[in-house]
Amino acid sequence: MSTTAIAIIGSISVGAYLMTVRMIPRLREMFIKANLCGRDLCKKDKPQVPESYGVIIGCVFLISMFLFIPIPFAFDKDAATDAVTGGKPVTFPHDKFVELIAALLSICCMIFLGFADDVLDLRWRHKLLLPTIATLPLLMVYYVNYNSTTVMMPNFARGLFGTSVNIGIFYYIFMGSLAVFCTNAINILAGINGLEVGQSIIIAGSVLVFNLMELSLGHQVESHQFSLYFMIPFFATSLALWKFNRYPSQVFVGDTYCYFAGMSFAVVGILGHFSKTLLLFFLPQILNFLYSTPQLFHFVPCPRHRLPKYDAKTDLLHISTTEFRLNELGSLGRLMVKVLRTFRLISWQEQPDGRIITNNFTLINFVLFIFGPVHERIATQMLMSFQLLCTLLALFIRYPLANYFYTLET
Amino acid sequence: MSTTAIAIIGSISVGAYLMTVRMIPRLREMFIKANLCGRDLCKKDKPQVPESYGVIIGCVFLISMFLFIPIPFAFDKDAATDAVTGGKPVTFPHDKFVELIAALLSICCMIFLGFADDVLDLRWRHKLLLPTIATLPLLMVYYVNYNSTTVMMPNFARGLFGTSVNIGIFYYIFMGSLAVFCTNAINILAGINGLEVGQSIIIAGSVLVFNLMELSLGHQVESHQFSLYFMIPFFATSLALWKFNRYPSQVFVGDTYCYFAGMSFAVVGILGHFSKTLLLFFLPQILNFLYSTPQLFHFVPCPRHRLPKYDAKTDLLHISTTEFRLNELGSLGRLMVKVLRTFRLISWQEQPDGRIITNNFTLINFVLFIFGPVHERIATQMLMSFQLLCTLLALFIRYPLANYFYTLET
Repeated sequence: MSTTAIAIIGSISVGAYLMTVRMIPRLREMFIKANLCGRDLCKKDKPQVPESYGVIIGCVFLISMFLFIPIPFAFDKDAATDAVTGGKPVTFPHDKFVELIAALLSICCMIFLGFADDVLDLRWRHKLLLPTIATLPLLMVYYVNYNSTTVMMPNFARGLFGTSVNIGIFYYIFMGSLAVFCTNAINILAGINGLEVGQSIIIAGSVLVFNLMELSLGHQVESHQFSLYFMIPFFATSLALWKFNRYPSQVFVGDTYCYFAGMSFAVVGILGHFSKTLLLFFLPQILNFLYSTPQLFHFVPCPRHRLPKYDAKTDLLHISTTEFRLNELGSLGRLMVKVLRTFRLISWQEQPDGRIITNNFTLINFVLFIFGPVHERIATQMLMSFQLLCTLLALFIRYPLANYFYTLET
Repeated sequence: MSTTAIAIIGSISVGAYLMTVRMIPRLREMFIKANLCGRDLCKKDKPQVPESYGVIIGCVFLISMFLFIPIPFAFDKDAATDAVTGGKPVTFPHDKFVELIAALLSICCMIFLGFADDVLDLRWRHKLLLPTIATLPLLMVYYVNYNSTTVMMPNFARGLFGTSVNIGIFYYIFMGSLAVFCTNAINILAGINGLEVGQSIIIAGSVLVFNLMELSLGHQVESHQFSLYFMIPFFATSLALWKFNRYPSQVFVGDTYCYFAGMSFAVVGILGHFSKTLLLFFLPQILNFLYSTPQLFHFVPCPRHRLPKYDAKTDLLHISTTEFRLNELGSLGRLMVKVLRTFRLISWQEQPDGRIITNNFTLINFVLFIFGPVHERIATQMLMSFQLLCTLLALFIRYPLANYFYTLET
């Protein structure tokens, strides 16, 4: 393990943090002039806030990584140039090198597409298609470097399937879907000050802790080191953004940041070989997605915005609602709302004329439904605490529990 | 030489062309809604034209290339997967693979920065810094794959320097500067309908012809094949853009396209090992840059826009002008205008009060100064013809003349 390389990316990240903190307030005018701004609807005076600051964070991240590219190889004896001939290094680890470059290509591509989305307001089908395409270089690298598509079976299933099963092409489909899911999942658990960046910081922190634990156990050293190279500068630049994006937001992050964050996580999950553990860290996003499906796929009417409703008198957030009549829904929609109502997962108010009013199906509204109206800052903190809890659960599942279900062969 | 791979990138490019031609008119509203549009000042009614269409071309190019990534290796016997174990291919040519990925990273990065420039209107120092950073992955690949920094000397200098000289780090500085030059040079030879795309198409065509000639001579087959992989889809997508950007422009291309084109040329020049030949194809851009220096570096007053002046009565373009008094210029500025005047390279009009009026120092104004006012379509055609002439000259220098000056050792 090259601690020197990690120390260097650490120093670069500190520099990146300081630079970003300096740059963010200075670029305000540039964004407002470019009409990249929006109103913060959950404030009394609905201030104009510059939007899409993810593009700055993404740029600083890319510059940091570009400067870092030669470092891991500078301390690799296989990569040393032949001093006598001065020619190209003969034993250079091109396979490691291409992983780094392909990961950066996928991330760069996604920052670009996120920014294009912010500016041009792309359609939904593009939001699904483009991350898929951006992942292709990554999958190609996985294919030529590993092409390991076997999945370990838990103990109880081993009688049926054996210790491990080779799922072949489905493994690639899983990884492609992971990238699409990660990029969009952060984007739909959003809308109150600081939430996008807050959750990403906690996920990045969880990945860092997980990588360090695995490194200390001596498991798959190269993979977890690779993940650290990306997560350290990501964590640093996100922290700088958090300083300005937390309540009350001075800047908004835009789709650019959500896509950038999602793809960074997908990259380390796929090339670091811990995509399943990564999904455990995404538990709140998975729950939010599942809870949202009735509205996302239009089984239940979905208003243009599902943000909580702001009450200027009390300065608190209330649930935002959607209205429908039961007989307007399809049979699947009716089933969904009935199940959700039975388990008291949605608010339910029947009007005399038969219309039904429920909260919009997002995790933010669910929190407000359970705990009642709270201040915006508190709502973000609650969701971030939940994210943290899920990390602890994930680490519990990954370590004590996994040892119980999966017996590693030695 | 893998003709199959070239046939496939050819087919993908035809598909890309057809897709782009369909997409461009449909996305008009999206760009106008995003406020990405500008007025065409050289038309009677100064119509609103959507801007930054380079972003579409860039996206289609990237998607085409991402789909193409596995192809060159599918026909490479070293890259074949071990059929028995189904594991990773042992002899996979990672060094070739990383060239492709790093080239795409540099291009993707540049499209992104170009688009950011169009939207956010970056400062001049960013325009020089960012292409330098975007070239880093490319230079790193050059270092680990070739690290050949020797330059052949022409016959007359061999007595002094030997057959070839190793210029070491300066070769990398040269390649970095090449990328900065290429991205900005197309951007400053611009401003009349179709010129940015027109010149890029001719340069791309020249590179294609050069690659095919070298391939037919059996010189550096891999390098020129690599160049074809990029230039064929670039040529196809640019051709689609030309359909809408030529006089009268229905869409503008923005800095995005100029950066994208410049970086694509730099990439093939550097990794295809013909950076010096490439510069010969950039002769008009070099002349434009040299001619512009007095204004670019503010030795002579430089107005915000240096576009030709449109005369609505005659529908012709006239030179645009700048004004100064000789005693306002520094000594270097005075020297420059005197030399240019002596060789009749600028218009010169002395006012009774001592003010001097000359044309703005751009190649477009120079053409108008020499040939008098012409129609916008004709001006573009003249400059494109000049570009074509320079290609012929370049090929003459590269083949008959180079054989005279450089004796190849066998």
